[in-house]
Amino acid sequence: MLHPVILSGGSGTRLWPLSRQNQPKQFLALVGDHSLYQETVLRASRLPDAQAPVTVCADEHRFMVGEQLQGIGVPSGGILLEPLARSTAPAIALAALHVLAKDADATMLVMPADHLIDDADAFGAAVEAAAALAREGWLVTFGITPDYPETGYGYILRGAALGEAGYRVARFVEKPDLATAERYLAEGGYAWNSGMFLFRAQAYLDELGRHAPAILGAARAAYAAAEADLDFTRIGREAFAASPSDSIDYAVMEKTDRAAVVPVSCGWSDIGSWSSLWSVAERDDGGNRYEGDVIAVDTRDSLVRASERRMIATIGVEDLVIVDTADATLVARKDRVQDVKAVVDRLKAAGRSEHLFHRKVYRPWGSYDSIAVGPRFQVKRIVVKPGAALSLQKHAHRAEHWIVVSGVAEVTCDDKVFELRENQSTYIPLGSVHRLRNRGSEPVELIEVQSGSYLGEDDIVRLEDVYGRS
Amino acid sequence: MLHPVILSGGSGTRLWPLSRQNQPKQFLALVGDHSLYQETVLRASRLPDAQAPVTVCADEHRFMVGEQLQGIGVPSGGILLEPLARSTAPAIALAALHVLAKDADATMLVMPADHLIDDADAFGAAVEAAAALAREGWLVTFGITPDYPETGYGYILRGAALGEAGYRVARFVEKPDLATAERYLAEGGYAWNSGMFLFRAQAYLDELGRHAPAILGAARAAYAAAEADLDFTRIGREAFAASPSDSIDYAVMEKTDRAAVVPVSCGWSDIGSWSSLWSVAERDDGGNRYEGDVIAVDTRDSLVRASERRMIATIGVEDLVIVDTADATLVARKDRVQDVKAVVDRLKAAGRSEHLFHRKVYRPWGSYDSIAVGPRFQVKRIVVKPGAALSLQKHAHRAEHWIVVSGVAEVTCDDKVFELRENQSTYIPLGSVHRLRNRGSEPVELIEVQSGSYLGEDDIVRLEDVYGRS
Repeated sequence: MLHPVILSGGSGTRLWPLSRQNQPKQFLALVGDHSLYQETVLRASRLPDAQAPVTVCADEHRFMVGEQLQGIGVPSGGILLEPLARSTAPAIALAALHVLAKDADATMLVMPADHLIDDADAFGAAVEAAAALAREGWLVTFGITPDYPETGYGYILRGAALGEAGYRVARFVEKPDLATAERYLAEGGYAWNSGMFLFRAQAYLDELGRHAPAILGAARAAYAAAEADLDFTRIGREAFAASPSDSIDYAVMEKTDRAAVVPVSCGWSDIGSWSSLWSVAERDDGGNRYEGDVIAVDTRDSLVRASERRMIATIGVEDLVIVDTADATLVARKDRVQDVKAVVDRLKAAGRSEHLFHRKVYRPWGSYDSIAVGPRFQVKRIVVKPGAALSLQKHAHRAEHWIVVSGVAEVTCDDKVFELRENQSTYIPLGSVHRLRNRGSEPVELIEVQSGSYLGEDDIVRLEDVYGRS
Repeated sequence: MLHPVILSGGSGTRLWPLSRQNQPKQFLALVGDHSLYQETVLRASRLPDAQAPVTVCADEHRFMVGEQLQGIGVPSGGILLEPLARSTAPAIALAALHVLAKDADATMLVMPADHLIDDADAFGAAVEAAAALAREGWLVTFGITPDYPETGYGYILRGAALGEAGYRVARFVEKPDLATAERYLAEGGYAWNSGMFLFRAQAYLDELGRHAPAILGAARAAYAAAEADLDFTRIGREAFAASPSDSIDYAVMEKTDRAAVVPVSCGWSDIGSWSSLWSVAERDDGGNRYEGDVIAVDTRDSLVRASERRMIATIGVEDLVIVDTADATLVARKDRVQDVKAVVDRLKAAGRSEHLFHRKVYRPWGSYDSIAVGPRFQVKRIVVKPGAALSLQKHAHRAEHWIVVSGVAEVTCDDKVFELRENQSTYIPLGSVHRLRNRGSEPVELIEVQSGSYLGEDDIVRLEDVYGRS
């Protein structure tokens, strides 16, 4: 049976300011209504014989993964939480151990969470061909038939044919310069290394054990030390930390003599930058892609994204990427967007937070958005999901006013528990033990006005928490 | 005696999105800490023999004028409120009548409120020379010695010399094309028409009566019908509406044989566009002017203004104007900024409000800013100035929660009057007659959460108002 494995470990900042460390690009709806992660899950789920997908992700993204799975109604085959990043070879080993525990003959389809595939039929046919090779013991990588001499990807040179649709891998090559890439295209037989794989779980572990035994050992120990936490499988930190950090390409694929490649042309993109998003997006006659409230005058070949309650006007510009968010706007030449890294580096160096969080912050119980700040106050817009509850908590430095604007909240304040409905308010004095809960079926939305001498997120003592954070 | 007259009637949108109809560019601090209007008032006040300045402005800007005068501690010589715009000839006539009522021999220095002058000494010397000519009965215009062949201004050709520093006006010429402007500079004797004038008030009225008697008649009638309203002189609407709309140039200066010009080189700019602001601003080695929180990578010859609580990052761009506000961001090529008019036209055509108001709206009592909106609620951040009071009012469709975050508010709610201090809150039920007042010496800041089925600004019944709005 085919077990999709979604690698969602990336915390890429190449799509900053939309992508932030706590909400990286795989969780963003960049094209259409679903996030790239959701698109990947849906794509995998529609394949014949596909089992519930296994997700490997960073600990800090667990609630986002859970919520996004729920949002598309796809049952989870497991959410494995990496305590720290160790690249793809160890992550895939964890997933292999996880699926083997349920299915001794499991075949895995490994897909990064942040790729886009336009032609699902072509991809499905390639998966079928790869599955046939995997049954023969091959470790199959998907090679994207190149459209143009891209210098940002590694390439795979195919060798002898294996049946009708596959080949032995002759050679993996690093990102080439432009002349070399052009030569690859002219010569033929080269494909882009997509980072997607298909193999029997046991075959992967066998080859990993042969070529990178330290990774296999660490992954086995870390998986054995895993603990269940709600819907999540929390991988053992100490054992996993001991694993070498290496990619599946370096650790296994480039070393094994069982590497095969299935070439495919399926409208694949890894959306590695704003310019690549522009190039895959539908555009108007002027070559522009607009999202949100945009008024454009004489604008060409640009990507413009406005954010909620804000408009962007452009005049006489071309080849720009303009991306607006609640707290930061990027204006970049389209061929310079890779330097967004330089901006993120400056944010890091200055100890700022615009690369870590959006102004609106997601939490397991919902979200909050800091809509105003002053010297001794802060105003937050808070949404609590149906059935969710914030922790039972108290603050040492702030009092809070809560005004419910929709839904029905259950409020605990010291020894009292009461309901608060639309247009009702309450006051949480400094030091009071309090909790906010939504027992209804609609979201609760409320405005919180904090007042006090210190208003940092760290002024919180959690006495009880349904999400294990106390 | 010299009576400065500040013409503040403009509602220019050429500096949109910073400039809005209810807060046009003369009231913005574009260069330095003071607004252009304040700079103009201060410049005039420092001249020898200068009397308190008279301001002519639109009715809707009266509180901003009052507040900005107060902000620089300059006493007002009168604030004349135009009920509607009739261009400069009628406006100057109103000011002439106003100063003549106090001083039968008054000399007027007429200055648009939105010009920048770098070299106050050179300007002072030109005023002195102009005053000498005005005493001889000349109507003097200030001609700016051109630095370059600008095609956006009219030009004045000087004729015979009048003493050491002035000339008769030989001819006014319309905005030239580039070749013509280049010829003007090569020939010499041409100056930019600055829109600043100096003359005896009676001399102006005499010439106006001679060349545009309908304007004089309407201005006399409108001034006679004026009513005092707090510190303002509210010009009679019906009589003023009957005036032809014409500029002083067309109505008087081009027709009179008493027109003189004093050439001056004083670092003058009318800041007629974002590119002209860029050209007068101090810039870094890369030719950039940054205001606010800007992170720029490889950026050249650009003007970038971030707004409060928001950052702008730029990468690899040049010759751009990027101006951010709470609800709109402009990204324009610097040589295309005049087309901001096209954006404003689209906003008008769509019945929007981003050309009329900022998100933060100034009122005679302070300001409000709509920091969040939802289907049945709105959150406002409200500041009430010391000594100020909102109207005694009620709403048909909304209840309000008020939480004071600084200062001490006096709250009236039906038959109760009470104080509300920092971290205290109250509830104004739907239909209650209520008022908010600041009797203290510090601003009151509060958060208002409105809840109801309709939340428009027009759901208000004013029962009493200290600003005459009930």
